Order: sequence, then structure tokens, then C-alpha cells
Amino acid sequence: MSKIKFTIEKKLPGKLGRAGTIETPHGVIKTPSFVTVGTKATVKGLTTEQIVESGAQVVLANTYHLYLQPGQKAVRQAGGLNKMMDWHGPTMTDSGGFQVFSLGAAYGKNISKFAKGEEEAAIAAPHRLKRQDDEIIKIAKIDADGVMFRSNIDGSAHYFTPEKSIEIQHDIGADIIFAFDECTSPSEPYNYQAEALDRTHRWAKRSLDHHKKNGSPCALFGIVQGGRYENLRKESAAAISAMDFDGFGIGGSFAKEDMTTAVEWVNSVLPEEKPRHLLGIGEPEDLFGAVENGCDLFDCVAPTRLGRTGTFYTKRGKINILNSKYRNNLDPVDDDCGCYTCKNFTKAYVAHLFRAEEMLGCVLGSIHNLYFINHLVMKMRQTIIDGNFSEFKESFLREYGN
Amino acid sequence: MSKIKFTIEKKLPGKLGRAGTIETPHGVIKTPSFVTVGTKATVKGLTTEQIVESGAQVVLANTYHLYLQPGQKAVRQAGGLNKMMDWHGPTMTDSGGFQVFSLGAAYGKNISKFAKGEEEAAIAAPHRLKRQDDEIIKIAKIDADGVMFRSNIDGSAHYFTPEKSIEIQHDIGADIIFAFDECTSPSEPYNYQAEALDRTHRWAKRSLDHHKKNGSPCALFGIVQGGRYENLRKESAAAISAMDFDGFGIGGSFAKEDMTTAVEWVNSVLPEEKPRHLLGIGEPEDLFGAVENGCDLFDCVAPTRLGRTGTFYTKRGKINILNSKYRNNLDPVDDDCGCYTCKNFTKAYVAHLFRAEEMLGCVLGSIHNLYFINHLVMKMRQTIIDGNFSEFKESFLREYGN
Repeated sequence: MSKIKFTIEKKLPGKLGRAGTIETPHGVIKTPSFVTVGTKATVKGLTTEQIVESGAQVVLANTYHLYLQPGQKAVRQAGGLNKMMDWHGPTMTDSGGFQVFSLGAAYGKNISKFAKGEEEAAIAAPHRLKRQDDEIIKIAKIDADGVMFRSNIDGSAHYFTPEKSIEIQHDIGADIIFAFDECTSPSEPYNYQAEALDRTHRWAKRSLDHHKKNGSPCALFGIVQGGRYENLRKESAAAISAMDFDGFGIGGSFAKEDMTTAVEWVNSVLPEEKPRHLLGIGEPEDLFGAVENGCDLFDCVAPTRLGRTGTFYTKRGKINILNSKYRNNLDPVDDDCGCYTCKNFTKAYVAHLFRAEEMLGCVLGSIHNLYFINHLVMKMRQTIIDGNFSEFKESFLREYGN
Repeated sequence: MSKIKFTIEKKLPGKLGRAGTIETPHGVIKTPSFVTVGTKATVKGLTTEQIVESGAQVVLANTYHLYLQPGQKAVRQAGGLNKMMDWHGPTMTDSGGFQVFSLGAAYGKNISKFAKGEEEAAIAAPHRLKRQDDEIIKIAKIDADGVMFRSNIDGSAHYFTPEKSIEIQHDIGADIIFAFDECTSPSEPYNYQAEALDRTHRWAKRSLDHHKKNGSPCALFGIVQGGRYENLRKESAAAISAMDFDGFGIGGSFAKEDMTTAVEWVNSVLPEEKPRHLLGIGEPEDLFGAVENGCDLFDCVAPTRLGRTGTFYTKRGKINILNSKYRNNLDPVDDDCGCYTCKNFTKAYVAHLFRAEEMLGCVLGSIHNLYFINHLVMKMRQTIIDGNFSEFKESFLREYGN
């Protein structure tokens, strides 16, 4: 029996989208919901109260990072992820698959959520890896059983199998965990994508078997892959649906313009009664497509990463707070935003913090961007329920695109 | 008429120490009180609520830094320091004298609050100044009228006079401001100290005249200097007392073991009925000596700077959270500390944040250390009122020294 309960409240007429709830051991997630990323068991710079006030319902930590630091046993000893980081709501961990490939085995191979985009450079080539060289790529190795990879901290060698990923995730103890998958680069040819997909499906089965054998209180989501190919995406959705997962992740790299299409292929095959998480997507324009096409959850580092570097979401699009025109601007970042940053500070002050390289700038930026995205998705949910999602989408994107 | 009102509630028998209150335009400071440093109009990484919860009563910003960035006119346009940084309590600015000498004119001359100590390296030689060379020291110049110095941001040349410092401080608009002084290095010979002291007294008079002429709502404190010399310290206390200041700052560099003696010299001369601020002192062991010898206010970057780098105050002395023995320690940083950090997190988690170079570690460290120091000084105040200060001092320092 599933450890979570998904209920659909309202569907979007003629579309795959829906509003619902996911009941987890740590509380209810009202969907669609943005999932706040807390990679290393911390939402960078924010306290629990600040995360709650941003409207966050659920926090996702990372298996790869917590395995390396402080180690999953340390998390378990601390009473699990929730207790360790003092987060009282629902939690998730991703399987480490994406990081193993992007930070480890596939370093240099241009693995990213999007084929092009500002996220890519940072994810595909974090500065810490610059000291690593081609030799390591040759050493990193995928075999039928799992993946050998190098730590992004000290270059030490590690080996992940589906069983290992599940065991680590059980130790971390989030409410919802993911099967171990291979996240391919969009630059790989069809034959490689097909071969990797078979591996992902075998690993999904092994993840599920190991999860059931070990009797964890977590819910387990299987991950659908298949790159940009309709037949592979649909094949993958069918294969993963056939297994007894509690929900689904949709993984892989997308060309930005193909994302919505790929999601629609997948969600038209996945069973309606289980929740679907689109992995690593979080820009406003993408979220509308994902929600409309039946995704319930989405995580993305963009809101916090952009916030830490001075890029703020506003209803009229993203702004760089360091633009000289904001130097003496005494208005809030976004006129009618209700976040802590906008209620208490001016653009001029926030810009001063970034110019002075003051940490509070990063904190205020993260708070604002999380609030913006969380409330945007909440509004999408409300308009699905109220029956005016399309109108909201159109009016939001018209103003946002300006 | 003074813009602040100082009232003594209780004196320490046979000593200069006292508990009292300072009423300011932004509220009452119960003294003795630690003054939280918010150099660039931000207490690094902390929100207003976090500063309040740490027990902070008053925040001190820096004239030198705000003059350079964002500029005092920008602070004025924003409605002044309080409004700009969303701090609703009392505020202070120091005159910029110390920074002009330590970051500007006297760069390389080893200006610091203590002749030796961990604070020194960071203050006397901030990394940003490494690109500056001896040429700049030669260019920097003190004359009878003021000081020419170089910006620590871009090396540009600036000139501060007492009048200029007062004007900048009026624009920033704190409740309590300081006269412009020359902060000498303890390594300077007696003759130089005496000459600099004369300059400081002339500058005090000019600061006061300009302040009165411009009719600001701020209170102005004069600064006593005089290095380690009893006659100079007493002469300075007498000269500054003879002017119509609202209170006093005690400035200069000290040998750690001489600090209490120098404070006693000065406070035995200063009039009892005005408040005294010991500039740049904040380690627990020093605070007892300062309070006992009649200081009412103290500011120091140590609690936040140490907190950001993983050194935490505890009742048993300072600890480095990165010590391997804390790696799996599930106790709070300090057993019966009531701060947010200690109430919600373990040493192991805080250590993980520092190992992972996570910003939240700096935030939690600053919160804990500020709470520790603020509450230590509050306890000193309470024991002065209750008549058991000496017992508290002895028992605290016995445990702290372990």
C-alpha cells in the first residue's frame, strides 16, 4: 500500500492538467506545487521560518550530495532529513542519478535540463570540477549494474547501483524518493538513448524491488526518460506505469521548446491517479506548460540560484537588480508582491547589498524568488479550481513577456 | 539640549560600573548594552527579526563604508539608516576615523583594537587591500585639517575633515553619532601619540561646532584617545569632558592586558552623568572589565565575524565547530542557550553546513554569537541591579576559562 495518498480535486477541461492533494507522513501538499530545492539539507541561507513564509510546501534534498557530505548514516543518526534540517513539512530526495552523470561520470558531456540556457553552464561545469580532466571521464563508467563516478568534492571514486541509491535514500528518510535512472544528454544519438532507456527501466525495477524488500515508510516514484523521442518517451511511460510505483518523475534533458510536448507525450500514457513530478523545471513560462499538461510537482534550483546572484522575478519578467537604473529606486522589487523582501526593502537597498557583496542580498533574493514561484504555482492551482486557468496563463505571460 | 537622556539606575559598589537607560528617538537602550555592528547598513546575513531575536537593542553602522557605498546621499534619500535597513530601534554611526586610518591612510601600519589578536590581521590587512602598495601609504596624508585616504573599494582618493564626517553622519541620520578622531597605532612613540591627541581634541571641537551649527536631531559623542599613557588618557578625558558632548567614546588600540586599566583612567575623569561607549571591544573577558569600570556601550565585529567562520561562543569558552569531535554530536552548540540556532539544530548539522560551505552556517553562527554576547551583557546588567555582579563575573569566567 502506498505511503502517500493522491486525490484529484479538479481537472482542466480538455487538458491533462489537474489540481489535487498529496497526503504524506509530514503533511499535505496541495498540487500543482513547486518543490523547494534544499540540496545539502539546507535551502541556501534560509531558516525554516523563511522557507515556510515563502509559501514552500515541500523540500527536496539530494542523494548524491548528502551521500558525500555528511554521509547518509549521519543523516539517519540525526533522525532523518526532516529532523536534521528542522523542516516539519513533506520532503523528497532525488535518486542521485542526474548528479552522478552531470557532476561525475558525464562531466564534460553537457548534461543539463535544457540543451541551452543559463542553468546549463553552472550545472554541467561547476567550477570545482575544473581541476578534473579527461582522465576522469575515461575512468567514469556505466555498466549494466550501476555507475562508477568521482566525488565533486575530492575526486574519490564511488559506485552507485539502484539498490545503493535506494538504501541511501532510506537512510535519509524523505517522504518521497526516486528510482535510480540514467539521465542522458540530448546530444547522444538515438541508439544510445534507447540503450540507456532499457537500463533505466531495468534499474527502475531493481529500485522498486529493493525498496519493497527493505520495507521503508517512504513512497517511491519511478522515473520516465526517453529524451526528445516520442516513441521512447511513450515506451518509457508505459514501462514505468506497469510497475507498482507510488508516483512518477519525468526526467531528462529537454530543448526548451520541446519540453511541453515531451511532457504531454508522457502524461497521456501515465495513469491519472498517481502524482507526476517534472524534474528540474521551474521557470515561470515552463511551469504553465507543465501544469497544463498534467504535472503536479516541479523542482528547480533557478529561483534560489538566480536570487543569490541578483536576478529577481517580477510580474514584468526577470530583472537584474544591479542595473544602474535601480540604484536610487525606492520602490520594492515587485510592486504588489507580499514577500518579506518586497514588504520591507527597496530596490536601491537590495542593489546596495549586492554591490557591497553582502550576504543579506542573497537571502532576500532567495526569499523573493521562492515566494514568487510558489505563489505563481498556487495561483495556477486556484485558477484550475476556479475554472479560469487559461485566462490567468494568458494575462500572466502577456505581462511577464514585456 | 541633548537628544538622548541617560539615567543611572544602580551603581556597582566601590567601582565605576553602573546599570542605566539611554532614551533615544528610536527607543530605550538598557545599559550596559552590547551594540550590534551593521557596518554597511546590514548585520551580515541577518533579517531585522533575527537581529531583534538575538537580543540586540542598538545597531551601529559605519560612516566610512556608507560614504563609499552607497553614498550618504543615497541613505538620506532612502529616509535614513533606520528606514533603509528596516531597523526600528536605536542606531549609531562611528565617525569613520578608525576606518580611514586602518583601511586607508594607515594601511600597513598595524592599526587595530589590540596590539595582537585574531581580529588584527583581518582589520589591519583586509584581502582587498593587497593590491595596494607602499605608494598609497606615502600618498595618504594627515594634516591639521583632516585626512586624505584611499577607498578600500577602488583606490580612489577622498578627504575627510571633522566637518565632512559630521555632515555624512547627519545624512545617514543615526540616533547617536561620533566626533571625528585620529586613531593611533600603539606602535607609535609617545611624541606622536601626544601630537595626534592634540589633533583629536581640535577635531572634537570642530565636530561639535559643526554639529551644533547644523542643528541635527542626533546626539554627538566625543572620543577620548591617548594610547597606553595614563597622563594622555586622563588629559584627553578632561579635554573631551570640557566640551558639550552628549556622551563619550573611548577609542584607540589597546594591549589586551592594558584595556581595563586604560578604561579605568578615562572613566574616573569622565562625568558620571553621561553615557560612555568603549569602541570596538566585545570579547566576553573584556566586557566584564569594561562594565566594571564604567562603560555603558560596546560594539565589536567579533561575534558576527567569528560566527561566520565557525567559531562559536559557549559558556565553556569558544569552540571551532569544524573540530572533528563535533561531526556526529547531536547536542546543541551550547546546552542551555535559548537562541534559534541552539533551539533547533545540532552541532553535527551546523558543522555540516560549514563543511559544505553553506551560507546558513554563517547565519546560524551570527545568530548564536550575537545572542550569547547580548545576553551576557544583559546578565551583567541584571546582576549590577541585583547586587551580585562580582559573583556572576567570577562564576562565568571560571567556567568560560575552562
